[in-house]
Amino acid sequence: MNSQLPSRYLEIAVNEISKLPGIGKKNALRLALHILKQEDSYAKNLCDAIMQLKTEIHFCKKCHTISDSDVCEICGNPSRDGSTVCVVENVKDVLLIEHTNQYRGLYHVLGGVISPIEGVSPMDLNIESFIERVKEGEIREVIFALPVTTEGDTTSFYLYKRLSGFPDVKISMLARGVSVGDELEYTDEATLARSLKDRVAYSVTI
Amino acid sequence: MNSQLPSRYLEIAVNEISKLPGIGKKNALRLALHILKQEDSYAKNLCDAIMQLKTEIHFCKKCHTISDSDVCEICGNPSRDGSTVCVVENVKDVLLIEHTNQYRGLYHVLGGVISPIEGVSPMDLNIESFIERVKEGEIREVIFALPVTTEGDTTSFYLYKRLSGFPDVKISMLARGVSVGDELEYTDEATLARSLKDRVAYSVTI
Repeated sequence: MNSQLPSRYLEIAVNEISKLPGIGKKNALRLALHILKQEDSYAKNLCDAIMQLKTEIHFCKKCHTISDSDVCEICGNPSRDGSTVCVVENVKDVLLIEHTNQYRGLYHVLGGVISPIEGVSPMDLNIESFIERVKEGEIREVIFALPVTTEGDTTSFYLYKRLSGFPDVKISMLARGVSVGDELEYTDEATLARSLKDRVAYSVTI
Repeated sequence: MNSQLPSRYLEIAVNEISKLPGIGKKNALRLALHILKQEDSYAKNLCDAIMQLKTEIHFCKKCHTISDSDVCEICGNPSRDGSTVCVVENVKDVLLIEHTNQYRGLYHVLGGVISPIEGVSPMDLNIESFIERVKEGEIREVIFALPVTTEGDTTSFYLYKRLSGFPDVKISMLARGVSVGDELEYTDEATLARSLKDRVAYSVTI
């Protein structure tokens, strides 16, 4: 045998499957052999579903989250608070925040964060469409919910500067502090320092 | 939103991807969003490779391992020892044994093991074709390399009985004992007892 695998097609499949994040060659081989063992419909259903991801899913023309129509169910819901917009990096963050059931405003998905190292400039992100939304005048508060990294902070700062022409728009960001359920012992110094500086009035929450 | 996910197609994709072994719903969502973010060719290459698994891969008509042709490269290799056949549960076991570089004989892939609980009877396995191979008269030794489970042992015993008509064929099985690198402390009693009973003459190996 030229290679370790007895079939060229198995090799191609292992290669493609192992391109998925978090799936190594060994796991990819296991998945390929599993697919091979199943009925034909198994592979077909999987592939149809994956291809439909690319052909059928739309992105909301207002907030850029994924949607089955031109405007997503959040932007199209009249009971949501259109005066508040939460700026997030990606679609997954929208799902996470929605899952908390704590937020009734709208979103704006940037599609990434500014990263000179990875070659992501403000032009690559959904920033102009965000400024356009603010210009419409309905937005009263913008919440930055970007990752707590240099890139996330850079992006927040860039947006903050771009919003300087709108003095009526309040700009806030997610609180940074000790995680719920965390021991202080395992909280990093920067977070601890921040949570001390941003301390809030004591209240009893369940 | 009716469901947690903002798109029906995303939901279908998450469902299908999470049918893969070892991939939960959360991981499937991560993979689906990753695929969605990539170029169209990414999903296409992945799906082409998966579909080709089902359409292009053959099974060797002699030993039933996967192959790009009717007879696999192992069975078709004249320098392999055709008098020895190693009986394994599945294709992955062939790859594992090949990887040791210790075996020069041929294989026979059963495609499973006898399991009354899961409804797998001898008829569901590649057993008749194995007996046919033995009948041809070339095989001098059969090595059972089946899992060390009740099902594996049952299958070995069934094959042993079926081979009773061939007194010239030597029947062996993989040695069972303490794993290389294992402390005795962490070896289960059954294995330890077996390794004591099957003790071998002391020799120095590197």
